[in-house]
Amino acid sequence: MIGIDIGGTNTIFGVVDARGTIFYNGSIKTGIFEDVNDYVTALAKGLQDVIEKAGGPEMIRGIGVGAPNGNYFNGCIEFAPNLPWKGKIELARMISEKTYHIPVTLTNDANAAAIGEMAYGVARGMKDFIEITLGTGLGSGIVVGGTLVYGHDGFAGELGHVIIRRNGRMCGCGRKGCLEAYCSATGVARTAREFLTNRKDGSLLRELNPEEITSKEVYEAAAKGDKLAQEIFEFTGTILGEALADFIAFSSPEAIVLFGGLVKAGDLILNPVKNSIEENVLKIYQGKTKLLVSQLKESDAAVLGASALGWEVKEE
Amino acid sequence: MIGIDIGGTNTIFGVVDARGTIFYNGSIKTGIFEDVNDYVTALAKGLQDVIEKAGGPEMIRGIGVGAPNGNYFNGCIEFAPNLPWKGKIELARMISEKTYHIPVTLTNDANAAAIGEMAYGVARGMKDFIEITLGTGLGSGIVVGGTLVYGHDGFAGELGHVIIRRNGRMCGCGRKGCLEAYCSATGVARTAREFLTNRKDGSLLRELNPEEITSKEVYEAAAKGDKLAQEIFEFTGTILGEALADFIAFSSPEAIVLFGGLVKAGDLILNPVKNSIEENVLKIYQGKTKLLVSQLKESDAAVLGASALGWEVKEE
Repeated sequence: MIGIDIGGTNTIFGVVDARGTIFYNGSIKTGIFEDVNDYVTALAKGLQDVIEKAGGPEMIRGIGVGAPNGNYFNGCIEFAPNLPWKGKIELARMISEKTYHIPVTLTNDANAAAIGEMAYGVARGMKDFIEITLGTGLGSGIVVGGTLVYGHDGFAGELGHVIIRRNGRMCGCGRKGCLEAYCSATGVARTAREFLTNRKDGSLLRELNPEEITSKEVYEAAAKGDKLAQEIFEFTGTILGEALADFIAFSSPEAIVLFGGLVKAGDLILNPVKNSIEENVLKIYQGKTKLLVSQLKESDAAVLGASALGWEVKEE
Repeated sequence: MIGIDIGGTNTIFGVVDARGTIFYNGSIKTGIFEDVNDYVTALAKGLQDVIEKAGGPEMIRGIGVGAPNGNYFNGCIEFAPNLPWKGKIELARMISEKTYHIPVTLTNDANAAAIGEMAYGVARGMKDFIEITLGTGLGSGIVVGGTLVYGHDGFAGELGHVIIRRNGRMCGCGRKGCLEAYCSATGVARTAREFLTNRKDGSLLRELNPEEITSKEVYEAAAKGDKLAQEIFEFTGTILGEALADFIAFSSPEAIVLFGGLVKAGDLILNPVKNSIEENVLKIYQGKTKLLVSQLKESDAAVLGASALGWEVKEE
């Protein structure tokens, strides 16, 4: 199986076995190709190299692709804001045609992460879980009864865009109060700026240029015991817990798996999330849903997840 | 197939064919039996009557039961607030044992309504939809990929208890701001009382005792052109649309099907719901999700839904 993770800057790929070991890998730049045909040609060349190393195309059962706004049903990417190509692009077909016609399955990156978690991660053996990716934004992959929820159009699972604060913060999607505007790396940086403006107490963060504060800097300050920085994570975790309590009422998952850069803050964010879930969840769910942290290496997870997608049987 | 709908006051049941025609039916009182064994004995007697009329037990492939807090996985009802029996009751097993050992499948009433809609109603042929029951409370049944979402514990789909107004109205569940506290028959009555207290404008509703106002009376006033009553439905529909927009981000359903007493208000409630969905939904979903009204007769729907449950293959 081959996994491909398409990011705005880099595209990374690798040959993966059924146990989730990545054998051969490579990468190309994404953003430099203004024409998607040139991009696919360069990608196919890179894939041919790793396929040869793996023993030829007959050794590869399928190719899975995780891409921003990737649609599982039609294999297209559509209106992905961080990619240079506009409109609807039949990426799965294009890659397959230039890569020995190996079957290509495509989905968005958050769904790919959830599938990777089910195949190789902490959700192995689980039939009902929700994976929340806390990166620059907030992505999600929902698994119900052992299969990814795609919805009737392939676009299900945009949990970063449920409204958690009506008329709240402006979101990149054009609406107000989306979960992602609070619970993401950029959300943490926004909270830091708000706290620094609205409060008077001292903080290590006051030494930084507020316009350039990152969630990593907030974490470093919090780890050093900075009170204000710790409260930023408490604020973030509490809001995330409120949202997760609502998600539990939807699909009653066995676990919620958190993944992505923000989770490196560990208990600083996990404790408020846990407390907030228990405070906000309907009584019949109390104490039932596990809160887990992905153990997949972040650099590998996207490729693993995309490759695991290749194992999925596609319904027509 | 036999469908049984257990309500706090009455239990109704009927023999249903594959097309959704109810041939023989009957009912017993629910609340008068303090001992659940006596209840099951009386129910089994009623069932035997209709089974005989249908040509004997070999004509019946299965029995489906819709019951408050019914759990599909273990066939039990647990802590149902409107039923006289306390604790966990193995109702499916008990009914089967006293009814020729015909297999019995059980779920909650809102899930049964969704299954009925999929088998006999406006959701026929749909693989992804959400059924919202607007009765005294707000119930929901979620269908993903053609199967009901039960979650890992059988309790998924409590959409009446997502928080739509943080720190909002007190809900019967002990939490604040639940959707059901706004969008249900009791929610409409509460809104009426709030509007009458907080506003000064005249209304037909001012002639009524505010403590006893019903959603039906609000509808009747609105239908007569009463401004305040119409605004109560607008308020209710707008909030429901906000919630539905979030649900769409979860499972991207082909349709949302509304069912129950409140839907009789027709466009008075449907128009604000539609407008509010379109205003609040993420751009990629705009104009995609149908808003449908159940066409099942309310008196039949529960029995039909429960009977359709008998057709479901139970996963272990």
